[in-house]
Amino acid sequence: MRLRTQGAVLAVLGVLSTQAHANDDVLKQTADPKQWAKQEGDYANTRYSKLDQINTTNVGDLKVAWQFSTGVLRGHEGSPLVIGSTMYIHTPFPNNVFALNLDDENKIIWKYSPKQDPSVIAVMCCDTVNRGVAYADGRIFLYQSDTTVVALDAKTGKEVWKAKNGDPKIGETGTMAPIVVKDKVIVGISGAEFGIQGHVTAYDAATGKRAWRGYNVGPDDQILFDPEKTLSLGKPVGKNSSIKTWTGDQWKIGGGSVWGWFSYDPDLNLVYYGTANPSTWNPAQRAGPDGKQIDQKWTMSLVARNVDNGVAAWAYQMTPFDEWDYDGVNENILAEHEINGKKHKTLVHFDRNGFGYTLDRTNGELLVAKPYDPDLNWSTGVEMDKSKPNYGRPTVVASKSTFLNGPDVNSKNICPAALGFKDQQPAAYSPLTDLYYVPINNVCMDYEPFKVSYTPGQPYVGATLSMFPPEGKSNTGHVIAWDAAKGEIVFSHDELFSVWSGVLTTAGGFFCHGTLEGYLKCRDQKDGKELFKHRLPSGIIGNVFTYEHKGKQFLGVYSGVGGWAGIGLAAGLDKPTDGLGAVGNYAGLKQYTDLGGSLTVYSLP
Amino acid sequence: MRLRTQGAVLAVLGVLSTQAHANDDVLKQTADPKQWAKQEGDYANTRYSKLDQINTTNVGDLKVAWQFSTGVLRGHEGSPLVIGSTMYIHTPFPNNVFALNLDDENKIIWKYSPKQDPSVIAVMCCDTVNRGVAYADGRIFLYQSDTTVVALDAKTGKEVWKAKNGDPKIGETGTMAPIVVKDKVIVGISGAEFGIQGHVTAYDAATGKRAWRGYNVGPDDQILFDPEKTLSLGKPVGKNSSIKTWTGDQWKIGGGSVWGWFSYDPDLNLVYYGTANPSTWNPAQRAGPDGKQIDQKWTMSLVARNVDNGVAAWAYQMTPFDEWDYDGVNENILAEHEINGKKHKTLVHFDRNGFGYTLDRTNGELLVAKPYDPDLNWSTGVEMDKSKPNYGRPTVVASKSTFLNGPDVNSKNICPAALGFKDQQPAAYSPLTDLYYVPINNVCMDYEPFKVSYTPGQPYVGATLSMFPPEGKSNTGHVIAWDAAKGEIVFSHDELFSVWSGVLTTAGGFFCHGTLEGYLKCRDQKDGKELFKHRLPSGIIGNVFTYEHKGKQFLGVYSGVGGWAGIGLAAGLDKPTDGLGAVGNYAGLKQYTDLGGSLTVYSLP
Repeated sequence: MRLRTQGAVLAVLGVLSTQAHANDDVLKQTADPKQWAKQEGDYANTRYSKLDQINTTNVGDLKVAWQFSTGVLRGHEGSPLVIGSTMYIHTPFPNNVFALNLDDENKIIWKYSPKQDPSVIAVMCCDTVNRGVAYADGRIFLYQSDTTVVALDAKTGKEVWKAKNGDPKIGETGTMAPIVVKDKVIVGISGAEFGIQGHVTAYDAATGKRAWRGYNVGPDDQILFDPEKTLSLGKPVGKNSSIKTWTGDQWKIGGGSVWGWFSYDPDLNLVYYGTANPSTWNPAQRAGPDGKQIDQKWTMSLVARNVDNGVAAWAYQMTPFDEWDYDGVNENILAEHEINGKKHKTLVHFDRNGFGYTLDRTNGELLVAKPYDPDLNWSTGVEMDKSKPNYGRPTVVASKSTFLNGPDVNSKNICPAALGFKDQQPAAYSPLTDLYYVPINNVCMDYEPFKVSYTPGQPYVGATLSMFPPEGKSNTGHVIAWDAAKGEIVFSHDELFSVWSGVLTTAGGFFCHGTLEGYLKCRDQKDGKELFKHRLPSGIIGNVFTYEHKGKQFLGVYSGVGGWAGIGLAAGLDKPTDGLGAVGNYAGLKQYTDLGGSLTVYSLP
Repeated sequence: MRLRTQGAVLAVLGVLSTQAHANDDVLKQTADPKQWAKQEGDYANTRYSKLDQINTTNVGDLKVAWQFSTGVLRGHEGSPLVIGSTMYIHTPFPNNVFALNLDDENKIIWKYSPKQDPSVIAVMCCDTVNRGVAYADGRIFLYQSDTTVVALDAKTGKEVWKAKNGDPKIGETGTMAPIVVKDKVIVGISGAEFGIQGHVTAYDAATGKRAWRGYNVGPDDQILFDPEKTLSLGKPVGKNSSIKTWTGDQWKIGGGSVWGWFSYDPDLNLVYYGTANPSTWNPAQRAGPDGKQIDQKWTMSLVARNVDNGVAAWAYQMTPFDEWDYDGVNENILAEHEINGKKHKTLVHFDRNGFGYTLDRTNGELLVAKPYDPDLNWSTGVEMDKSKPNYGRPTVVASKSTFLNGPDVNSKNICPAALGFKDQQPAAYSPLTDLYYVPINNVCMDYEPFKVSYTPGQPYVGATLSMFPPEGKSNTGHVIAWDAAKGEIVFSHDELFSVWSGVLTTAGGFFCHGTLEGYLKCRDQKDGKELFKHRLPSGIIGNVFTYEHKGKQFLGVYSGVGGWAGIGLAAGLDKPTDGLGAVGNYAGLKQYTDLGGSLTVYSLP
């Protein structure tokens, strides 16, 4: 696909089409609060359910209704889907999928067990996780570790089509949940720790034929950016907006992978996602031709793309020239907020770099950028003055710059750590309070970059990290409520470990999240007061979900410790200092929990 | 050890010693109903708890209090132990042991992870199960798959001593729970499907030094049978009681392994256990020198041994010349019953062969032998007339004799199947009703023996089996209540699958058991009425246990499908006809559950 062949398509950019936007079936399924039809709850990624049978007055009475062991030990991210009376359960590698009959003892209607070369495990940076399947039009879409995208008949589990999206031999893997928009299934790619060239790809949902692919780094015809029409901070990006921010051909192994959650605005016909870090983690190797910082666009960015052709409407780079692995993949939650007296269609994003961003999602205008954790210390703030040359950019504290300090120097006590104050574990929005409920990693780090050579399929990291709680603290987590219009923390509650579980909000007035040591907790949306707490078989890195069946509301979550936070346990690393999961108090996790994937579903007595 | 050196020891056989019998600490710990200090509940194997906070009126209100994932996928037999505020949890291979602090969020105080050569898995016939640890005098005793017996400091998990009990290279493995009696730790050996020579061995609990070993087949000095004093059916066994019932040296690979539950009578100073099948399963290869049936003693037998020296007080062979794999290892439950007007110290045993036996445990006198499942069809009954030459023997129905039918002939529709109407999953006794509550495999089989050669460490089975529910039935399980004085079924309730979970009885008037599809069920001891039913993450082959902590009664069980019943799932066998676990409706198990080991603990709200 070349841009010059796309004039006609580009011309419609930004023009609202009169035809039905979105996938009607996804809209229909997610509109029914009895179902959990999408990993994110809805296209807006609110993770808010209108069900209110369980509410603040009775959530404390929840009891375990039933459970299901997945037969897989390692980290369980994402959640099941519920469509009608069928629940779809997925697992980490080997990415089995179960369809359970909620009408008949939750019996297994079918089990899909893909055959994958287990060598892919070696190129999965942060445990063998998978963030779940997508549903639309009678099909289940699975994105396997080995990057195979599979469409299954939702009734029978039979394969309808398969497409190979990437190549594990160069470190490309699949971990994210696909999203179905209109007639397309869209997936990203994992592997920025292996020097891949990150991309987003749309497949025809009916046939599996590739519709378009947009890279996040590279020439304009690869990144599908229109120099004139694609905006950034209110201005057209211009020609070669990516490659001119790289030295030589480094963009070819430049990272910018995509493995978080997609959101979609049907009215704007745009999908939103974040891009990951540039490769390597050693910034000195990525310096500009002049030896200075250079942006490495469009890594660490939010990107809005037209669903039909993949062309970018706008992009915003949170962390130019990353020096900390502040990967920008976190979810974007779509709502509306009044800011400075004007109502905006907003996009709210809690970046790994510690800033909570509110943008106008129609054009990428930056509205708010404030730390969502007061321990942030690598930057003094994001420049909000449009007249300044560094408008929209974080001002870096020199002593926390791993680039200025140089390779083989251990830059001390940088907050947040590479994990970010939040990673992929999704926050949720509640219209009841107009607040966002955010699971936090309260973690800082020492970061020592070093020179690394690129070898296809080998780790291309180039930094040694040590992670720990902020000075004077022993816990590494909390949950907060966030006012995205003001950029303010409304309340914050400490957790012993980083909260690596996605949040659910409901019309019952509470929100729920898991904890790494294995508690499911539900709290009052008003003040975060703990209303329910229950210990599950293993630590929780899955996302809380809810559904109604035969008139009864259920609420559930996967347990199964792992992921980046639990990689020490998941991969059997003996020393807390081993591997990327080396986080101070996480070593204590093994006092609380061991591996094992299960779904637990609660209901009122 | 040679018999001729033991005259002095033998002289005390049958004489009650005046010194303390039993291990005082085991007696003390098991006397406290707040603890679950022994896999079997007590030395008598009653599995009865005096706790009554949970009772027939409120057991229906039980809710999941907490859970613990063991990090191991395959079949979880046995149960945890609770000593004071510490819970000891074990796993199948690799036989990890966890000590959990019930006073502090059930945190892991220590985890013991033995290093074992995984090649042992290949010689474990029926999944990589382990039936649990034993506790005494501040030590945890673990019997590993590779036959290593380990004593751990219960406070720290540090190894105190290790002893190697057998050799996996010839098919010897460890699966049973050790028993501590007096100053000794006693273990058997698994491997009758590999042609081992079965034995029971006592180790000094303080040092790990071997005290004695009694084989179950072989010369008198190996089996520790006293020709004059060891009784069987009221008579001395005489010289060479074992080897004279074998052709040539076949006893050397003759099976008779020991892997069930031991019981112990402190007053009689005797331990009781059952011995497994002779090797091979092809009876033609084991025929006598005259080509006829020959007993193959002391396989398929109950044996009572003196704890101090291992010498047998008495033995009783349930199934001479086994033709069906009616392995005799099932537990022996000690109580007292009045039979024919006379009170006896009894031993009740539900044999794989389908007969429920009541013996006088002081001398092995046979009191009752009746089918505990009406579908039994391989025998017309056990001869109870002492004057008859076949006294104490089952009368075999010729058409069900796989020996008379001959090798390479498929003997049809034999009930029970090789699994037995009950396997190792232990029954429980309640003094409230004077009844036994028995988990049943309601399974029949076709059995085709064939010639097999003995190669050390290779399967020495020699039969192809097909197992299925009795004619006209679709379920393969039930639970019954049994009157052991009369030899009568008091009530019976069907279960979809064989009940492969050990039963608990309590002073609360109910009994509980798990099911293969994953339900924990509690029933009224009076009539078996279901009072509580709850679905666990995976199928249950563990044993229900109970304890009290901080004034609250808890009730728990392992889930984690596997074992012989679940070997198809556990070992990933594709076809229901693959392997020894080939049982008709078990193929349907995969509709209900998948692998994964967890402990679930319930309490009242």
